[in-house]
Amino acid sequence: MTKSALQIARAAYQPKLPKALKGAVKIVAGGATQSVADQQAIKTLFPNTYGMPLIKFESAEVAMALPAINVGVILSGGQAPGGHNVISGLFDGIKSLNQESRLYGFLMGPGGLVDHKYIELTADIIDEYRNTGGFDIIGSGRTKLEKEEQFEKGYEILKQLDIRALVIIGGDDSNTNACVLAEYYAAKNYGIQVIGCPKTIDGDLKNDMIETSFGFDTACKTYAEVIGNIQRDCNSARKYWHFIKLMGRSASHIALECALQVQPNICIVSEEVEKKNLSLDDIVTSIAKVVADRAADGNNFGTILIPEGLIEFIPAMKNLIAELNDFLAQNAVEFSQIKKSAQRDYIIRHLSEENSAIYASLPEGVARQLSLDRDPHGNVQVSLIETEKLLSEMVGTKLAQWKQKGNYVGKFAAQHHFFGYEGRCAAPSNFDADYCYALGFTASRLIAEGKTGYMSSVRNTTAPAEEWISGGVPITMMMNMERRNGEMKPVIQKALVKLDGAPFKTFAANREKWAKETCYVYPGPIQYFGPSSVCDEPTKTLQLEQAR
Amino acid sequence: MTKSALQIARAAYQPKLPKALKGAVKIVAGGATQSVADQQAIKTLFPNTYGMPLIKFESAEVAMALPAINVGVILSGGQAPGGHNVISGLFDGIKSLNQESRLYGFLMGPGGLVDHKYIELTADIIDEYRNTGGFDIIGSGRTKLEKEEQFEKGYEILKQLDIRALVIIGGDDSNTNACVLAEYYAAKNYGIQVIGCPKTIDGDLKNDMIETSFGFDTACKTYAEVIGNIQRDCNSARKYWHFIKLMGRSASHIALECALQVQPNICIVSEEVEKKNLSLDDIVTSIAKVVADRAADGNNFGTILIPEGLIEFIPAMKNLIAELNDFLAQNAVEFSQIKKSAQRDYIIRHLSEENSAIYASLPEGVARQLSLDRDPHGNVQVSLIETEKLLSEMVGTKLAQWKQKGNYVGKFAAQHHFFGYEGRCAAPSNFDADYCYALGFTASRLIAEGKTGYMSSVRNTTAPAEEWISGGVPITMMMNMERRNGEMKPVIQKALVKLDGAPFKTFAANREKWAKETCYVYPGPIQYFGPSSVCDEPTKTLQLEQAR
Repeated sequence: MTKSALQIARAAYQPKLPKALKGAVKIVAGGATQSVADQQAIKTLFPNTYGMPLIKFESAEVAMALPAINVGVILSGGQAPGGHNVISGLFDGIKSLNQESRLYGFLMGPGGLVDHKYIELTADIIDEYRNTGGFDIIGSGRTKLEKEEQFEKGYEILKQLDIRALVIIGGDDSNTNACVLAEYYAAKNYGIQVIGCPKTIDGDLKNDMIETSFGFDTACKTYAEVIGNIQRDCNSARKYWHFIKLMGRSASHIALECALQVQPNICIVSEEVEKKNLSLDDIVTSIAKVVADRAADGNNFGTILIPEGLIEFIPAMKNLIAELNDFLAQNAVEFSQIKKSAQRDYIIRHLSEENSAIYASLPEGVARQLSLDRDPHGNVQVSLIETEKLLSEMVGTKLAQWKQKGNYVGKFAAQHHFFGYEGRCAAPSNFDADYCYALGFTASRLIAEGKTGYMSSVRNTTAPAEEWISGGVPITMMMNMERRNGEMKPVIQKALVKLDGAPFKTFAANREKWAKETCYVYPGPIQYFGPSSVCDEPTKTLQLEQAR
Repeated sequence: MTKSALQIARAAYQPKLPKALKGAVKIVAGGATQSVADQQAIKTLFPNTYGMPLIKFESAEVAMALPAINVGVILSGGQAPGGHNVISGLFDGIKSLNQESRLYGFLMGPGGLVDHKYIELTADIIDEYRNTGGFDIIGSGRTKLEKEEQFEKGYEILKQLDIRALVIIGGDDSNTNACVLAEYYAAKNYGIQVIGCPKTIDGDLKNDMIETSFGFDTACKTYAEVIGNIQRDCNSARKYWHFIKLMGRSASHIALECALQVQPNICIVSEEVEKKNLSLDDIVTSIAKVVADRAADGNNFGTILIPEGLIEFIPAMKNLIAELNDFLAQNAVEFSQIKKSAQRDYIIRHLSEENSAIYASLPEGVARQLSLDRDPHGNVQVSLIETEKLLSEMVGTKLAQWKQKGNYVGKFAAQHHFFGYEGRCAAPSNFDADYCYALGFTASRLIAEGKTGYMSSVRNTTAPAEEWISGGVPITMMMNMERRNGEMKPVIQKALVKLDGAPFKTFAANREKWAKETCYVYPGPIQYFGPSSVCDEPTKTLQLEQAR
């Protein structure tokens, strides 16, 4: 493997550990816990793993002598920077308790457990991957561990490899499933512990005990780097509006964090759009207004951050998509016989008045996408809609109307960007490298204590790593009941952007100024060496949230 | 202005200067020079600035005592990392000779000279912009300085501000115009020197005396960072082919440099496509072959780098576009009366057999773009064609055919990216920060020596900055005669990728292995602090070219 100069230099980085994890630890347990909602239902579903106490690790005088243990690890879902460090922390953690302990990695996600595909993760392999981005050490996948049959297939291989504990690194759904699996193995008395680790770039897995999920820091900094570069270009050339779409299907944490870092002219926050019941036209009008205001000052340029999931957060668009899905499903045969060029009119004639008007207002390309490009279940593929182009096209149309009326004097030209894959596998920042390593190391201590159904937790993360608090949170504590595919299911509550939270409020307090003036900040690339102020600062989101 | 932590830390960076520039300098002049071609024509056009010697600066014992001088500076064309450092090097250079010297910046490009828009660049302003990306200190623009009338308007303001020397920072065209201006002012005896500085991200302004143009290093490293991240993702998820388009309309230096840095599965080099007279189908087939070969090994993923200018380098596409332009111009009225849905057939019926077949083979969207989206002169807007999507769509179609015949077993899904604005304004790498500062400083010494029609030159750039060789090259030396808009003009020869050069040959020697195996390298973000191996390495292109 050819390595870049940075990879070679970075391999030597020793992640910082919380003080309590540096030597022997003792466990400090709190009182019994409850789920965030639907306590009775959750308790009934998780009789063995409900109500367990919060756990904190503190330094102890005497180290436990522990028998060797075999541990399995799974990477689940989309990539996030730092996954390899969770695994190296876990590896170093179990080895520090007993050199004979072994770590097995299941390949290509939860599917590897079910299909019995695995490798032993030896020191040589681990050393190749320390402080690197990506999940390529064992791969990841999206198979959902939900069925008893899968649990039993997993048990077969776990028993065969004498694995006593399984660590699942994943997002909210994967951790929900980790808990279901923990409960199942506990109920069956299989003697296999299951521990979760909180990963999502989107940042939507967090709560009082999980301050941030790993990868968010690095990904946002990588996006902020390139957005900053675009802003500098924008401010030099002074002739384009850059519409920049950012990852985040269900929450706008990334767009908001990037906005706090780069101070763009506009940032749309999906949660606000939903809360205020804004229409697509409202959003387009508000963007056009900023464009026109800046043009009046002679500034025909700007930047707009757009969360990937926006369309589905616009209540009116959600209704339109729902009616379209139903309508096209019910009239599939008739629709398929209509000439392409007549399809749009056909839909406009048949939808309800309100949705028909919205559909008619959409640019042709998007309208076609909504009516034609459906997934195997016949549903509109919202993720394929190029929201950044949709918005710029509609803003352009609106500005042209205003120009005719004399309400706008300026030139409007747009450029489009979408950043997702560019940041998901970046080499982890110092923060993520440390945080992930600590999460993995903490998981090893939860295993040593015989815990199951816990999520590894590292808190106080705006303090120096020394002072971080390591422990475990019962996964059931984060759960509530939600409707999924028509059924009520116990799931970890998704953390959307809180409109009364400090990050959003800080943004809201500044956005008018940022819109009108040009207040761009240029964060530059992530630095791994150099002053701590440059290398170690956590996200603005975390700083603002923890400053309460 | 809110500054990021990195901006603050980076402001303190003191660019490294060649040893010869650290104290007093003396000039060492070589023999008379000639233009690279068309010597007689160029000589006739540039009687005052032709044939001047190459210049090198060496350390001297005694410093010249110089009268104060007013200098003007212009940023011309697209942004490139390091422009601010050229200006700060120039500023420090003229101040080191006489503290009373002043620097004026003309605003928004050459247009600022003609329109008399300028600011004085004081120490306070300069200090705000040291080691930052962008051209926002004075802005840039694309006005071409070509006409006597412009030269005279420029002279007015130069005289008014008592400016004796003008530094034009730009690409090949801007430097050509700088030389025309130098010649004009010399012929008129206006007593105004003109000095050029070599800027292009594309890397197409280089020759024996100009080893690299500034910004290429930083931009390529920024693109390589995000491509590396995508490759890590690609190698973790193992389910997508990423089609990545990169800046470079007229030369493929960026794509080639990035390929050398990241080792993708495929990189297309426009110059090779042209040389080998490849058709679009040839290119599509060669990509599909790699996709199929990898699929046979179970690897349904990969990365493809595509230079922005590819389409115009495919001889058959060039012919098609030329015929389309002529045809649509001659039949504009008739064509405009044809229904949209019938336009494609109409074109297919009327083009020559060869071009008709190519046109018919194009995906609908691209065909529409070629026939409809024309610029104000009625020409096809090639730059709007999303080459990355065109290729992936055609590769998908070809693979589907092969699948039917049983020649391909695999899944093909594509993601698309285009990187340009993401790197043009990145904060300059140490290399570009040093190189640009040295170019600006050198310009001040050329001015002090009374030179005009020279380009600032810094060579031996793969050695430590201490050992760099600073001097000047007569711009006429790089010129030849080329047809531009139907007229023969003296222009600086564009440096395309040389197929017999070390960078391409190194790529060619490795590409089969990179295609079949997965040899991705992950360069990571540009580092400004830390080991020199990480922070100071020049581009692979430069290293390979200079290793001769």
